Amino acid sequence: MTHEHCMTTDWRSFGPDMLTPALRAALGVFVREGYHGTSIRSIAGAAGLSVPGLYHHHRSKQAILDAIVTATMTEMLAHSHAAEDDSDGTARGRFDNLVEALVRFHMERRDHAFLASTEMRSMDPQVLARHIAQRDEQQRLLEAAISDGVADGSFVSAYPADAARAVSSLCVSIATWYRPDGPLTEDEVIERHLDFARRIVGAA
Amino acid sequence: MTHEHCMTTDWRSFGPDMLTPALRAALGVFVREGYHGTSIRSIAGAAGLSVPGLYHHHRSKQAILDAIVTATMTEMLAHSHAAEDDSDGTARGRFDNLVEALVRFHMERRDHAFLASTEMRSMDPQVLARHIAQRDEQQRLLEAAISDGVADGSFVSAYPADAARAVSSLCVSIATWYRPDGPLTEDEVIERHLDFARRIVGAA
Repeated sequence: MTHEHCMTTDWRSFGPDMLTPALRAALGVFVREGYHGTSIRSIAGAAGLSVPGLYHHHRSKQAILDAIVTATMTEMLAHSHAAEDDSDGTARGRFDNLVEALVRFHMERRDHAFLASTEMRSMDPQVLARHIAQRDEQQRLLEAAISDGVADGSFVSAYPADAARAVSSLCVSIATWYRPDGPLTEDEVIERHLDFARRIVGAA
Repeated sequence: MTHEHCMTTDWRSFGPDMLTPALRAALGVFVREGYHGTSIRSIAGAAGLSVPGLYHHHRSKQAILDAIVTATMTEMLAHSHAAEDDSDGTARGRFDNLVEALVRFHMERRDHAFLASTEMRSMDPQVLARHIAQRDEQQRLLEAAISDGVADGSFVSAYPADAARAVSSLCVSIATWYRPDGPLTEDEVIERHLDFARRIVGAA
């Protein structure tokens, strides 16, 4: 089950994210104050660094946003590829694992997901283009599983690309309301969203 | 078809929003720069007012956010209630009209919806509480239609509240990608999302 994308041996579990302490501190400030409301000085303060110390590692606020969002999307894609590789290879098995990976990611990486989705407006064109390319790669995995499932009779969907976007949006939205101490357990959130996702693609 | 909530005779059409020119200018700045990245001075500038002139009508930046978000949610609820009143009264008819109203709203009011969903972090407790109450009212309409549909055999759903949140999240996400000059017409977006929503609730 090795794969060039596979950065984790267990796609179901999440440890600490792959951010440096300075980037993790920046994420917290961005999520609280927004990109334009955040100064390099406040990031340095949150990271326990001097402003020159922060600039030593990151050349600009935009570079910091880029580093966080790229690491986030790279982790999401690594878990998605590993989940797909770990499936039985059928369209249905790939779809289920891809959905479960997305649901787990958005329960675990709520702040990361919030930043990536709300600050597209603040990304420079090159950063935005790379972000969109990574997001599109994610949706293409889902769309391919859906299209293959339509072809082999597992699914019924007249517009697999729209269904992939719908399933993806539904999983992304989990980051906005899920709380570890809330009424639903992780397993319940996964089970219910697998049910919704399978219904969206008309799983038999 | 009169109703105390009904502020429009045609829930399917949207004219200009109900914001004053100053609030509409503030919405534009908030959506571009974020709440914390926006100064009263920049709102006044966008509105063509002096800072004292802006303060004459609005006592704070928070009051401006509150006014925009409350007007937005009030309009969304007015369209939802009108849509439900305009249905044939069956669970299925109410559900379809509620979903269509939500889809239309999120195609027409993209900036408003973006602000309401991304700046909950910036709302003072009282403002946040009112916003959540309005959002919950919206979801309860959907949940009631789903529960009634389960009871009368139109729908199959083991968790109507979660299904209502899923359908609502799916409609809200339309604001993040829909563009009037994009590949899908309004009617196609409505038709496909009605299809997804009906599948989520297991419409027969």
